Formats: sequence, C-alpha cells, structure tokens
Amino acid sequence: MHRQGKRTIIFDSAPSITGNASVVGSVEGEGPMCAEFDRVFDDDTLGEESYEKSESALQKEALTRALKKAGKTEESLDFIFAGDLLNQCSASTFGMRDTECSFLGMFGACSTMALTLASAAVFTESGAGIMSAAVTSSHFCTAERQFRMPLEYGGQRPQSAQRTVTGAGASIVSLHRSDCPSIEKAVFGRIVDMGIADANNMGAAMAPAAAGTIADFFEDTGCDLRDFDYIVTGDLGFIGSELLRELLLKDYSLDIGSRHLDCGKMIFHRERQDVHAGGSGCGCSASVLNSYFLNRLKKGEMEKILFVATGALMSPTTSLQGETIPSIAHLVELRRPDSVRTGGNNNA
Amino acid sequence: MHRQGKRTIIFDSAPSITGNASVVGSVEGEGPMCAEFDRVFDDDTLGEESYEKSESALQKEALTRALKKAGKTEESLDFIFAGDLLNQCSASTFGMRDTECSFLGMFGACSTMALTLASAAVFTESGAGIMSAAVTSSHFCTAERQFRMPLEYGGQRPQSAQRTVTGAGASIVSLHRSDCPSIEKAVFGRIVDMGIADANNMGAAMAPAAAGTIADFFEDTGCDLRDFDYIVTGDLGFIGSELLRELLLKDYSLDIGSRHLDCGKMIFHRERQDVHAGGSGCGCSASVLNSYFLNRLKKGEMEKILFVATGALMSPTTSLQGETIPSIAHLVELRRPDSVRTGGNNNA
Repeated sequence: MHRQGKRTIIFDSAPSITGNASVVGSVEGEGPMCAEFDRVFDDDTLGEESYEKSESALQKEALTRALKKAGKTEESLDFIFAGDLLNQCSASTFGMRDTECSFLGMFGACSTMALTLASAAVFTESGAGIMSAAVTSSHFCTAERQFRMPLEYGGQRPQSAQRTVTGAGASIVSLHRSDCPSIEKAVFGRIVDMGIADANNMGAAMAPAAAGTIADFFEDTGCDLRDFDYIVTGDLGFIGSELLRELLLKDYSLDIGSRHLDCGKMIFHRERQDVHAGGSGCGCSASVLNSYFLNRLKKGEMEKILFVATGALMSPTTSLQGETIPSIAHLVELRRPDSVRTGGNNNA
Repeated sequence: MHRQGKRTIIFDSAPSITGNASVVGSVEGEGPMCAEFDRVFDDDTLGEESYEKSESALQKEALTRALKKAGKTEESLDFIFAGDLLNQCSASTFGMRDTECSFLGMFGACSTMALTLASAAVFTESGAGIMSAAVTSSHFCTAERQFRMPLEYGGQRPQSAQRTVTGAGASIVSLHRSDCPSIEKAVFGRIVDMGIADANNMGAAMAPAAAGTIADFFEDTGCDLRDFDYIVTGDLGFIGSELLRELLLKDYSLDIGSRHLDCGKMIFHRERQDVHAGGSGCGCSASVLNSYFLNRLKKGEMEKILFVATGALMSPTTSLQGETIPSIAHLVELRRPDSVRTGGNNNA
C-alpha cells in the first residue's frame, strides 16, 4: 500500500470483502431495509438475561453468518477487529471471547465499522495475516440506559435526537478475489471538535468531521465526485446530513447533492416509526453497509462507493463536565467485484 | 512483514522507537522508578478541574515529550494509536483532540501500550504511514471512581487488589534507524477467560492470557528463553506474576524464572507504599516501558526484551451481571539499537 496526499491510503492489492452479514432487532426489521438483513430478531433480548448480553449475542451472530457466507470458519481468521459503544467495549470483548483469533479492540464510537474495516484492510495487505473480521454492534436498550435514561423512565427526547440501532454487522476481509467487492482506499480521520455540546444533537457534532474526511479524500486523490455512485455516511441522520451538504458546499466547494446517502436516514421510516432525527449507533452503518450496500456492489448495481462512518467521541462523564463533543469520521472506498459488470451508475 | 507460526508477526524492516516518554503522578514519583520518568507531577490534578481532564493532560504531556525527544512535532505524525480505561476511551479522545493526525482509538484495557505499539509497527512497516505515536494512560482517581467506589468513601481493598497507576506513556514509531531501539516481532493476543470473576484479583484473571501469548510466541518462533534479557509483563502484580510462572512451567514447560519482570511489581515499593498486590492500569506498563526499559535498551544495557502487556476486558456492568473476566495479552519484541553494543545479558 502507499499513501497519497496527506491522509489517504491506497491499497495496491485491493483486499476483498469475502463475506458480509448484518443482523438487527425488531424495530429495524419494520424499517425500509427489512428485506436486506440476514436476520431480524423479533425479540430484542435474543433470549439473553440482560441487554448487554443480547448485544454481545448480536455481534457473535453477525460474525458467524459473515464467516458462513465467506465459506470459512473462525479457525481461518487471523484477526478480529471489533468495538462498540458500551463502557470498556464489553459487547465486543464478551461477544468475541469464545473465538481463538487474535483480537484487536477498537474504539471509534459510531465510526467503528469504517475504523475496523480499514484496519483489517491494512493488516491484510501488509502481510500480517490473510483473513480478518471487522465487527461492531449497538443496541437501543444498552445505549439508552448507559448514555441517557433508565428505559423504564420513558423520557421525552427532542426532535434532534437519533435512535440507537439494535444491530450488528460483520465483514470478512481477505486477499483480493475477483468475485468479491474490494477495499480500494481508506482515510483514517482526525478528531474534530467544533464546540457543539448537545448530546441530543450528535449528527450536528459529527457533520464537520465527515466533511473534513471527505474533503481530505478528494484533495488527496484528485478523484471526481462523479467517480462514485454514492457517498454513504454512517449516521448523521436528517439534521447532520443537511449540515454535511452545506459544509462541503460552503467550505470545500463540493456539491455531494443527490449522491449522498446516510445510513441513519435509510434504516427507519421517518414518520411512521417516530425516530426523530434518524438512526445512530455503531450498528446503524454496520448493518446497512453489510446488507444494502455490499449486496448491491456484489451484484454490480453499484460500481464504487465511499463509506464514511462518523463517531461522536464523548462519554456521559465528559458531557456532565461541560465538555463539547469531539468527533471523527473514517472513510473506506469500496468497489464492485472485477468479475461483475456494472449495471450503470445510478446517478450518471 | 510476514507471519511465523500461528500468531507471530515478524517485522522484516524492524521499525524503530525514535522517541519515548513517560509522565506520572505523585505516588509513582515516590516509588523505585522515580528517577526514570520524564516528569513527576506533585499535583495529581495537573491543575485541571476534574481528574478525567487531568488524565487527558497526562496523555498529552507524554506525547509532547516523546515527540520532542524524537526531534519531531505533531505535524510529522501520520497516525496516533491511543486508548485508555475510561468509558468511551475519553482520556485519549480528549487528550488527543487538538492534534491534526489520523486517530485510531483502541481498547485493550491495561494491555493498551502493547496493542498500540504493535499496531503502530504494522502500519509503519506496511507503508500506510512513516511515523506513528502509541499512547496510553491511566489515573488512580478516575479509575477508582469509575470502577470501584467514590474516592471520598475510602473503601478498604483486599490484599489481592492492585493500585491503578497515575501515569501515561508515549512511543514514537518510525522507519528503522540504527540508533534507536527497534520493534522486531509482535503477537496480538486472543481473549482468554478462565472463569475468574473477582475484579479485586485481576492479576489472577490476566495471568492465563499472558501465559498463552508467551507460549504462542515461543512455539511460533522457536526462540530460546535465553535469547531475551527479560520477559516483561504489564501489570500482573505480585499474585498474577506468581501464577504466570506456575502456568508457564506446568502447562508449557517454560521456566521464565529470574528472567521475568512485571511493571506492576516494579513501579511501587511494596511494603512502604501500601499498594497491596502492586500497580495496574494502562499507565503502569506504559510508564515503565517508556522509561526504564526503553532507556536501558537505548544504552545497550539490555539486548532484547519481550514486552507483554495484559488487560482485563470486563466492565463494572459485566461484573455486576455476574460475568467472569475475559483477559488478553499482546506481546512486542524490542531490541537495542544496531549502533549500540550490548553490555552483556544481565541474566546470562
């Protein structure tokens, strides 16, 4: 691999995603992405005694299914890259504890899917190993009680708040194969803090980080926006997405317009499901990427996308101490398999 | 780089640690390592309004000093790998938020120094970048109130409990230089859970993970114990260290005997400082590695060491839910600079 410009990594061998899976909870199963997911759990507890254990089970289920779709077992994996929103990333450590693979815990809040995916690509191309998994999850009930209020309290949330997705996604990253989608480039983001302190408006806090990473990518590579079917952000939701478009246009003269999609906007029916500003959580972009987008890339219905997952890096403690919200966005460029012809750029 | 055996990564180019620094709090400054540290803060608040902010300041101070010793500034850094024990790794995200570097948040609990150092070596040798920082911290006051009791409560702790170190360490990892210590090999550990549930006896929970990683390394590489001046574990403390030796002897026929040192045993005076089973926390192994050990490698007083940092991957929530403690150990082989002749293996 080599570096282009200030921050972009070019994967010369283009590691492939040879398996991908996403599993979600009941509310997500009622959303517009319903038919895309590998499994919808009607019971958000997954039969576990606590929601934290349910979240770990979600992660394990996503990994198991992704491996199966790759035609592999855990024994084939050299590394697992995983992280989540829970204190001490416990959904991941407990979800993955029965595996025998080298485990690298990561923390990127809701940017984790892009962080783990890009890291897996670096390790694969570097020769450190030949097969890795990138895994993450979130759960509405664990996030709500950890970050906000006890579930029983039934607190009102402002319209700017997003709903944490109950879901997990897993990608298996391997040496290049012509019949699988590939990872072409990546940008590991920098921390951006524009002074927003409202933890009920995280899309707004994260939008400048996404804008910075996207702008860095286009400046580094000289790519044209029209090279991509879509710029897919993680979970900016309705408010953050608007802000992102405005920031890119105003500060960087990039008009992403109709090429922009946001997993936080896509995963729920806005009106019917009463989710306010959209979905959020590591599981949001993880479940949508590992179903809707990777499936379309595999079929050649899309040629190339930029997947830009965003994370708000605060904790309840830092918010209570009056801190603002540092944010980050990691980017991965994904491409359809060589062997699949493209049905045409949907936006062209 | 290439892989040897099941889990060991060989860094063919042997990236160097071109700068290292450690900064600690007042109690650590009264310990036997006092003269080794770059800075001892008499005031553990570092003048900040909260202990969480103090911990972030510790991390920033360690990074600044390591960069200065490397003769570099933040602008030279391609990546920062950082993590800590606080919920949502906030000591790192807030400590590093003013930097402009690509930021990769990692979670390995007290194994973080080895996790970030090994990751930085992979990224450097891979060509993803040419200079990275590996940074971590812990703070007695943030850990105590997050994991155990309010500080004012003054709870009694059992003799098996370890004291969280107030300290931070940073290493600057760059392309190989003949005048700096080098990173030769690494093992990213697997999660090991032997069913220990007592969060006041973490050394015991972590010892099997350390034993597994060390045994994997010797099996993979065929190295001889006598190739190393020391096997340095992170923070097993007095109880965990004993267990490690027993496990390695019994299960793997490896007698590490007098070649074993543990940062958790080294950082405090056991009797005089009333620290029970020794030191712990990400800052324990980070501060001792980035002072005592790297300084001795630099001078050739040691030739080669294995640095094996261990982490207990539980959270207060998982412990309250009756879960046992999954643990992990990551290993890095470090070598003196090419240009420095060795004063002889202290143990030979």
